[in-house]
Amino acid sequence: MENSTILFAEKIRAGKRRALAQAITLVESTLREDILRAQDLLQQLLPFTGKSLRIGITGVPGVGKSTFIESLGVMLAKKQKRLAVLAVDPSSPYTGGSILGDKTRMQELSRLDSVFIRPSPTGGTLGGVSRKTRESILLCEAAGYDVILVETVGVGQSEYEVASMVDFFLMLMLPNAGDSLQGIKRGIMELADLILVNKADEGFLQRAKAAEREYKQAIHFLRPKYPDYATEVLLCSALHNKGIEEAWEFAEDYLTRLKADGYFAQNRKKQLIQWTRRLTEELLLSEFWGDSSTQKDWTKKTQLVRAAKLTPVQTAQSLIESFRSGKD
Amino acid sequence: MENSTILFAEKIRAGKRRALAQAITLVESTLREDILRAQDLLQQLLPFTGKSLRIGITGVPGVGKSTFIESLGVMLAKKQKRLAVLAVDPSSPYTGGSILGDKTRMQELSRLDSVFIRPSPTGGTLGGVSRKTRESILLCEAAGYDVILVETVGVGQSEYEVASMVDFFLMLMLPNAGDSLQGIKRGIMELADLILVNKADEGFLQRAKAAEREYKQAIHFLRPKYPDYATEVLLCSALHNKGIEEAWEFAEDYLTRLKADGYFAQNRKKQLIQWTRRLTEELLLSEFWGDSSTQKDWTKKTQLVRAAKLTPVQTAQSLIESFRSGKD
Repeated sequence: MENSTILFAEKIRAGKRRALAQAITLVESTLREDILRAQDLLQQLLPFTGKSLRIGITGVPGVGKSTFIESLGVMLAKKQKRLAVLAVDPSSPYTGGSILGDKTRMQELSRLDSVFIRPSPTGGTLGGVSRKTRESILLCEAAGYDVILVETVGVGQSEYEVASMVDFFLMLMLPNAGDSLQGIKRGIMELADLILVNKADEGFLQRAKAAEREYKQAIHFLRPKYPDYATEVLLCSALHNKGIEEAWEFAEDYLTRLKADGYFAQNRKKQLIQWTRRLTEELLLSEFWGDSSTQKDWTKKTQLVRAAKLTPVQTAQSLIESFRSGKD
Repeated sequence: MENSTILFAEKIRAGKRRALAQAITLVESTLREDILRAQDLLQQLLPFTGKSLRIGITGVPGVGKSTFIESLGVMLAKKQKRLAVLAVDPSSPYTGGSILGDKTRMQELSRLDSVFIRPSPTGGTLGGVSRKTRESILLCEAAGYDVILVETVGVGQSEYEVASMVDFFLMLMLPNAGDSLQGIKRGIMELADLILVNKADEGFLQRAKAAEREYKQAIHFLRPKYPDYATEVLLCSALHNKGIEEAWEFAEDYLTRLKADGYFAQNRKKQLIQWTRRLTEELLLSEFWGDSSTQKDWTKKTQLVRAAKLTPVQTAQSLIESFRSGKD
């Protein structure tokens, strides 16, 4: 372990925001030397992780995720809870958010000292889950944040990813009965611990209540996430700060119950093993492509592939053979 | 090479539809023995691939992709061209297509002997590109199909994947000017060789023409795929068989020009190298997880991870170390 990495880890643990931001950039890097350094750093920080509540939030663009996070975040700050938000970068071509959004979203929240907001570019992945969200969660925990919110956009795949790294999954819904249900895939609803119908304001209250009834009926037909647990449906108005406190109370009670029943720890362990598997695959591929004789071999063999003197299958087999036997 | 694989390959080359369907099922399998057998089969068939025109088709649900493919397919059959369609399975939870769709789509087409239709389950991937579409294209080519249509649904990532495995990329659009443009990401429009505004029927003709004008203006601001080439915008009505012939003529001329300019071969070679890379990674991971001592090691080490006696990073490193040194 390098000295500089130990110092880096100490700065993160001391709550230095700039160090945390740099560490997230490091884990997101695809450069080989950064990958190795990021692993050292994570190894160093792992003993100080795991103490936060990890909350996933999803919802279609326009449902009011930013307003909800702002409202929830300000409430948590008043309760002396430190909050980290791993947010979708709305300027990404994939998320469908507004380009202007990033400058104006979560204004109040971003001024609070107890809040860390990280808008992650979504890169090649869909729905705004960064490739390294799991590692970023761990870094935020080592930096002492009590609640980590992971935001995603409702397009499918990303919900499964986020659900596999959080303790509680919250689905924000528009106050539309009927047509709103159509757009939502049954599988995604099954991921939710709480469905929260937003914009339950004066004008939309009746529609929000109708949507609430409809979702309540729909969840009867879903597979529960845990035996004897049911997905709850609640109303809120993030804009007018209504129902946020109740939603948070529900989440806290639910998580307390999950802990008492052993599901919380069980879930975390399952996620840890999933992460180990993904990390192993990533490291294997990085060692493979970073290997200097594999690189030379690749250049030579792909020329033969171009000239139709070697097939892709033969190339793959011989590259792997050399990689394995080259190490001893 | 096993005898049975040689026989299997011969059946595919002889145009036996059942053998082709079984071969696609084999390459889509994730079982280790199937992966190895699929590689043998591909190795055997590769010399007989590469002669088709590979066409990608995308468009949002409701744009009329099935009707268009039916109309194009019947036209190609009249020209004595054998057509294979690697189609999205509309019953998948991801595609948003209708559940009933699969039974009723492409009815006329599916009765033709010269046409092979393969609805692929989209599995965990988004937008309906099967994990093994590239291999399925090669199998269809070995079976003698002249044109391979790969259908996807317009959600983003899948368009990039399909574009990386076809010679010509066609984007079907609804006849809506203005609001239609908003939903389309600039990057995806840049993938298209041809934008085809469908439903240019009596009732929608004015709107379709307005959309055509708008897309023509928009493409001026896009990066061309090849120097001195521009994306074309045409109108059609798949339902009334209008404009299909013209669209196909454009595609044929365009591909002839690409061949003369050398871009066609260049593109195919680039795609072959991309495939080689992906194949190598897949085989490496399959060898890794299929290795019996890795499996034992994994079981043992993940128990230590659960008990917090080993970190995921340490586990990954030591598993890879054993995998590499274990082979000699």
